[in-house]
Amino acid sequence: MLILVANLGSTSFKYKLLDVSGDLQSSDVRPDSRVLARGAVERIGDASTSRCEVTIGDFHDVSEMPVPDHGVAVQACLDQLTHPQHGCVKDPSDVAAIGFKAVHGGRKSGTFLVDDDLLVAMAEMNAAAPAHNPPYIAAMKLLRERFPDLPLVAAFETEFHDTIPEARRLYAVPPGWREDFQVQKWGFHGASHRFIAERAAELLQRDDARIVSCHLGGSSSLTAIQSGQSVMTTMGMTPQTGLPQNNRVGDFDPFALPLLIERTGKSLEQLLTQLASEGGLKGLSGRGSDLRDIEAAADEGDERSQLALQVFVEEIRRHLGGMVVAMGGLDAIVFTGGIGENSEVVREAVCKNLEFLGVELDSVRNQNHREHAKQSGGEDRLNSDSSGVQIWVIPTNEEWVVAKRTKQAVGL
Amino acid sequence: MLILVANLGSTSFKYKLLDVSGDLQSSDVRPDSRVLARGAVERIGDASTSRCEVTIGDFHDVSEMPVPDHGVAVQACLDQLTHPQHGCVKDPSDVAAIGFKAVHGGRKSGTFLVDDDLLVAMAEMNAAAPAHNPPYIAAMKLLRERFPDLPLVAAFETEFHDTIPEARRLYAVPPGWREDFQVQKWGFHGASHRFIAERAAELLQRDDARIVSCHLGGSSSLTAIQSGQSVMTTMGMTPQTGLPQNNRVGDFDPFALPLLIERTGKSLEQLLTQLASEGGLKGLSGRGSDLRDIEAAADEGDERSQLALQVFVEEIRRHLGGMVVAMGGLDAIVFTGGIGENSEVVREAVCKNLEFLGVELDSVRNQNHREHAKQSGGEDRLNSDSSGVQIWVIPTNEEWVVAKRTKQAVGL
Repeated sequence: MLILVANLGSTSFKYKLLDVSGDLQSSDVRPDSRVLARGAVERIGDASTSRCEVTIGDFHDVSEMPVPDHGVAVQACLDQLTHPQHGCVKDPSDVAAIGFKAVHGGRKSGTFLVDDDLLVAMAEMNAAAPAHNPPYIAAMKLLRERFPDLPLVAAFETEFHDTIPEARRLYAVPPGWREDFQVQKWGFHGASHRFIAERAAELLQRDDARIVSCHLGGSSSLTAIQSGQSVMTTMGMTPQTGLPQNNRVGDFDPFALPLLIERTGKSLEQLLTQLASEGGLKGLSGRGSDLRDIEAAADEGDERSQLALQVFVEEIRRHLGGMVVAMGGLDAIVFTGGIGENSEVVREAVCKNLEFLGVELDSVRNQNHREHAKQSGGEDRLNSDSSGVQIWVIPTNEEWVVAKRTKQAVGL
Repeated sequence: MLILVANLGSTSFKYKLLDVSGDLQSSDVRPDSRVLARGAVERIGDASTSRCEVTIGDFHDVSEMPVPDHGVAVQACLDQLTHPQHGCVKDPSDVAAIGFKAVHGGRKSGTFLVDDDLLVAMAEMNAAAPAHNPPYIAAMKLLRERFPDLPLVAAFETEFHDTIPEARRLYAVPPGWREDFQVQKWGFHGASHRFIAERAAELLQRDDARIVSCHLGGSSSLTAIQSGQSVMTTMGMTPQTGLPQNNRVGDFDPFALPLLIERTGKSLEQLLTQLASEGGLKGLSGRGSDLRDIEAAADEGDERSQLALQVFVEEIRRHLGGMVVAMGGLDAIVFTGGIGENSEVVREAVCKNLEFLGVELDSVRNQNHREHAKQSGGEDRLNSDSSGVQIWVIPTNEEWVVAKRTKQAVGL
């Protein structure tokens, strides 16, 4: 049974094709087991030709063709996947569903077959996820028309956080704002944190662990996981809050906005756009938004880059502390995402001086992780032998989670 | 040497007259030692008469008279203080200075003689502290004209937080916003947290303790105090962020605002006003903004009130956790403010399940605090004998701190 997992941008369509036949064993959750193919279509809707890329096993192909919309992109993808020589799918109908890693469904938090009500619920959240929801809605509408027999499933990033207790979900807003406008702490990166929850339970060989999952990458969030469930997370009503992101501000004081409007002459919309594109590590460092560049500059003595790293780490630690208190203790810290998997500097700084919680990073294991990961498929335990808290790097696998949820949703 | 400590609202003038002669010993920091008189003028500028209240030792007087502005209010206060029969001051010139518990000076964080530049710096922050700065500026200007020989001193609530490390002060905002518009985490309630820092050092008999000071009242904030200095606090650029307040939201996602504007048809200004007056414990509970009423309703089974209490406590605990991680451990928790001193329910819930940090509240001491406080002047240690972390209630004394800072600022 094949499921196409889709990750959309307004002009892009990235996918992986997963085989989810039979029982889904724990050994399957390793990165890219069960992945038959992956690909991407870029510059959709561009006047010139688009680039359609596909990798099927050892076969790699890039073709250029006009792709006016996401419907044509999916058709191009299916054509490549069913190619008589190199393809891995006999017939397009072998693809049982498309599972979308969708972002914000507001009142529809979960995994659902795409229908009219779902599209309305997503549209209601457009203003809270303006970069994500509109392209998903447009593409889903188009694909329903173009491929009426292909089930479309939306697996929302908020779903894993549905277990967060109410007292940690509410903003102290005026009455009715939650019911009428869905103003609450939703949390995102749910597929990633769910994967970490499941895989960490296997690696720790216990189901009741208290884990802080640190998804650190282009966008970053922390989630407190207790007995496999999300019990607290850093992102809020929108994916903009919480930790500083690559170019987005993270937690910010909305009551600073009137002063900024007065002093800059800019509109609220302009200021929020600036906060969401010129802030974060980029704004702090002045060295772009890639942490590797910032680490290199910090190494060479650049003070703003050093400070940017410190702010990022301080915010991770601040949120981590809140989660440890919420769970009444800590059994494991897991690092994932581009930064979590690759920055020994960030991991070391996050774990520093936490011996009072039982956290002891083994510096040598931390330094050697990259080398070790080549053999281990990326998974690695980095705590010292005497550490009371386990410290892991686990590569995440969001597509796996979306495929599994999609399989359930279509009842197969 | 006498200092009049002033706390202003747009239509009110509250004061205490403190004697700060000689050495200021630790025994002086108890509530109201050194306070010669206290009073309040309400409904300033009202068309009808204002109420001028004064308490000097056992003498209590209320007079009604027209008070068109804060200058007249101060004159009325001086008249009462120098009253030939009941007064405690021989001559108005015996008052060495007025010390203002001022809120937001932006680039001028500290304790300063009021001059033109200071008033400009305060005005630059009007939009960040609209309820506080404008009345202070107006009153200060008036009093400079009316009492040219009386030194006016502004002791800003941000000053105690000047020691917070830069990496915990910065928002991840676009470059220049900090330098040009003072956008950073300033923190407030500085006089209260400074008092707690000084008094706790005496009670703990050590200068290097790691303390979380919980100022919980009409407005609430937590401060992490390490070796007597503020190293982290919950309020940010404005006093609106951090914990949920009596009727103010606390931490909130600014990127939710476009959706709220779209769906409610309200302006940014209207929404922020709602968040600052219909949110907080009031918005959550629907039972007004007084915690005592909310506790009573929760006791009677009102679910929204129970949830409001839980949200308040969860947010206190979340921030406390961040502070413990920042300090690498914890030696004491101090409760102060109306809620901190009087709510055994909140204290118990905040300390619950923190044995892993060494926090053990003695439930009986906590329950009996109110009775015990009558003898102790309010100070009370509430941890069990086996607790690794001390838990205290200490009544705060902001006026004492402002008077002491004012004495220094006028060089006496």
